[in-house]
Amino acid sequence: MDTCAIAGVGLIGGSFALALKKAGFRGAVLGVDHPEAAAAALARGAIDEAVPLEAAVERADLIYLAQPIGAILETLPKLDAPTFITDAGSTKTAIVNRARETVRRAQFLGGHPMAGKAVSGVANADADLFAGRTYVLTPRDPAELETPAAREFRNWLEAIGARPVVVAPEEHDRVVAATSHLPQLLSTALAGFLAERLGGPSPIAGPGLDDMLRLAGSPYELWRDILETNAAQIDEALRDFAAALDRLRGELLSVEMRAAFQAANRFRNSTR
Amino acid sequence: MDTCAIAGVGLIGGSFALALKKAGFRGAVLGVDHPEAAAAALARGAIDEAVPLEAAVERADLIYLAQPIGAILETLPKLDAPTFITDAGSTKTAIVNRARETVRRAQFLGGHPMAGKAVSGVANADADLFAGRTYVLTPRDPAELETPAAREFRNWLEAIGARPVVVAPEEHDRVVAATSHLPQLLSTALAGFLAERLGGPSPIAGPGLDDMLRLAGSPYELWRDILETNAAQIDEALRDFAAALDRLRGELLSVEMRAAFQAANRFRNSTR
Repeated sequence: MDTCAIAGVGLIGGSFALALKKAGFRGAVLGVDHPEAAAAALARGAIDEAVPLEAAVERADLIYLAQPIGAILETLPKLDAPTFITDAGSTKTAIVNRARETVRRAQFLGGHPMAGKAVSGVANADADLFAGRTYVLTPRDPAELETPAAREFRNWLEAIGARPVVVAPEEHDRVVAATSHLPQLLSTALAGFLAERLGGPSPIAGPGLDDMLRLAGSPYELWRDILETNAAQIDEALRDFAAALDRLRGELLSVEMRAAFQAANRFRNSTR
Repeated sequence: MDTCAIAGVGLIGGSFALALKKAGFRGAVLGVDHPEAAAAALARGAIDEAVPLEAAVERADLIYLAQPIGAILETLPKLDAPTFITDAGSTKTAIVNRARETVRRAQFLGGHPMAGKAVSGVANADADLFAGRTYVLTPRDPAELETPAAREFRNWLEAIGARPVVVAPEEHDRVVAATSHLPQLLSTALAGFLAERLGGPSPIAGPGLDDMLRLAGSPYELWRDILETNAAQIDEALRDFAAALDRLRGELLSVEMRAAFQAANRFRNSTR
């Protein structure tokens, strides 16, 4: 790989650029973004040059799409060049399908780094953001992982300390509906419920509540595209969770409650 | 106050003892607990003397009940002496009612410090545990706060840095059902749901999940008495939350979702 172009040089795109450089990448890193963001990424030393998308497509042998999901879906049909394209969108089925329909001459491989911060923008980018974190790859066919360009990209993922995990796009979306989208909506719903119930913040609350409300601070702009492109899986996760919560409600005073706490204890410990 | 007796010298009772001493209390601090816990509290310097309950009742002018709720309910009828009694139980209606039925010669004032740690026992006790934290007092009648003994107790609360808040026992239990018991059960339910859905921990999970699963590590032993003594309020909170979650589910792709996120953002910010 000689030239890497990153579309969307915010927290994720900027961190990927800084990580590449830290891992020894000596080629050019091009950045595609609106002028303000591109200037910040240049100033941060994440990218070497800010270019329009067309120039990036022409010059890069790796195009890394780190935009919001909606922007990725709009960008894909514009990437008509014999290059390697990957993305960092947090839902995968819609993106992989769109790439299959619109990307002709390039190879596309979907990705999702399970890394992030509560703050956004290239100012918060971090060369170690992906170190030790899961990096999901979602080929339609395992052979997609074995092309020379895909092998080289996977080598760079290893070099930046990421831990690649391979699953189908639909399976990724089913799992994150439960492990990421459901928790977000529970926190959002809890904050809304408390606001209505209490009329405002109450001093009568324990320190545990703070953990449960942290995600409620997430901006809608970050979630709109996720909800839109994974609606069916999220709807199903919400429905099934509501049923589980209803069962727990029915067991409040029964002996089954001990087993429910113990199962939760075990799962919690297994994730640490 | 010359002599303070603390029944249950674990994290909360031990911290109250240490806080009193740090704030300048020069009288004797007696500890009532099983031999092992009493010895640990003595070694930690939290109490000056380990005594049986009967001796504590005879000698103390403040009796502080920092046991589990069930033990508090069992201890109250045994406190037949002209003294001042308060407690730190995390539900209040059952305890205040039991005190009204069984405490004859003493004054009882219910309390609930909104302070704690993920770890228990006097080894983790901390003289600053209550500093800056809400300390709920639940008199049946505001006049209960104005007796000489109650005034002296409230002065000590101020001295240890706690922030007293006065509400009726039922109102306390209604609020903590929403701000503490519901969040606990959501975390427990989420962990159980994920264990069933995924069959085990998945590497495909973001850092936000960890926050939502922290409470799932709580032991059932700490919660059994809470669920039992606040069942009706918890049942209602779970029912109403489920309805709110169902509404949110119906709005996944609608314009109302933005307003739901924004309301959650506002509430989250107001609690920080």
